[in-house]
Amino acid sequence: MNTYEKTIKNKNIYTGKVVTLDIETVILPNDKIAEREIVRHPGAVAILPIDNSGNIYFVKQYRKAIDSELIEIPAGKLEAGEEPIECALRELQEEVGYTSNKLTYITRIFTSPGFADEKIYIFKAEDLRKSKLNKDDDEFINIYKYKVDEAFEMIKNGEITDAKTIIAMLTIFKL
Amino acid sequence: MNTYEKTIKNKNIYTGKVVTLDIETVILPNDKIAEREIVRHPGAVAILPIDNSGNIYFVKQYRKAIDSELIEIPAGKLEAGEEPIECALRELQEEVGYTSNKLTYITRIFTSPGFADEKIYIFKAEDLRKSKLNKDDDEFINIYKYKVDEAFEMIKNGEITDAKTIIAMLTIFKL
Repeated sequence: MNTYEKTIKNKNIYTGKVVTLDIETVILPNDKIAEREIVRHPGAVAILPIDNSGNIYFVKQYRKAIDSELIEIPAGKLEAGEEPIECALRELQEEVGYTSNKLTYITRIFTSPGFADEKIYIFKAEDLRKSKLNKDDDEFINIYKYKVDEAFEMIKNGEITDAKTIIAMLTIFKL
Repeated sequence: MNTYEKTIKNKNIYTGKVVTLDIETVILPNDKIAEREIVRHPGAVAILPIDNSGNIYFVKQYRKAIDSELIEIPAGKLEAGEEPIECALRELQEEVGYTSNKLTYITRIFTSPGFADEKIYIFKAEDLRKSKLNKDDDEFINIYKYKVDEAFEMIKNGEITDAKTIIAMLTIFKL
């Protein structure tokens, strides 16, 4: 079955610093007209940093969208023209204060394809070297270290609920 | 470190059929003022249906947000007042034409906590019974069956990139 929807009109509702909201008018495969609400996002990277003792570095920060603190692997938005690997090294330094001599691309995921175009590139960072914690003045995060088994326990018991973090853990250690 | 951001103003930019966009003005932990772009979504369920022969049912559909077809497990938005388990049974019937006599709650995930509140409840559906394909007239999807090993191969080789689908597969079969 053909599932393609051709856009016949695009209306920009809002252009923000992080997201853009567009309403696209489309022709469905049955020739009916429909509207799609599309959130555009610059894309992001997420990095699972693991040291030589098997500690994984996580960040815990308040997320306004869900009005709660969340445990995540370090991550951040791509800047204009920035390559995912550069972004990964930048965020690793800004959020946990490390550089990596062995950064491996793992996979890329679409987080919410029903309404958003966000794509996240996932990396594994090994051979970590302490660096200056070159942090963003307006970013407030706490850093935690957990062993691989502890982190899997936290996924099982629901303490870790962030999609990119679960995917990084499972893809790197279980796939 | 305290990471909480108190909202002092909420401005609604758009209220759509799927998403709502708000701009929240917040006080950061350092007392500076900042704005957060927040996409509100009703939440969703995703269901991994597996039959007694070990076939998993996937749906492939065009997603306007990413301008591409995507392979996903059946999923759908929560309707007002609907329990996740009811929604799971409804979507299983609408998208693949099955009911399940053994629906197991697996976990819930936040897909994009940096800008959206979307939460997805993941279920495993077993003991499947053919039902009427009670489909939505304006939904165009193709159904595919893959064995567990084939699906993992598709995650490894990048044919499956949808976050909820990867998490369901890995959490159900590898955790």
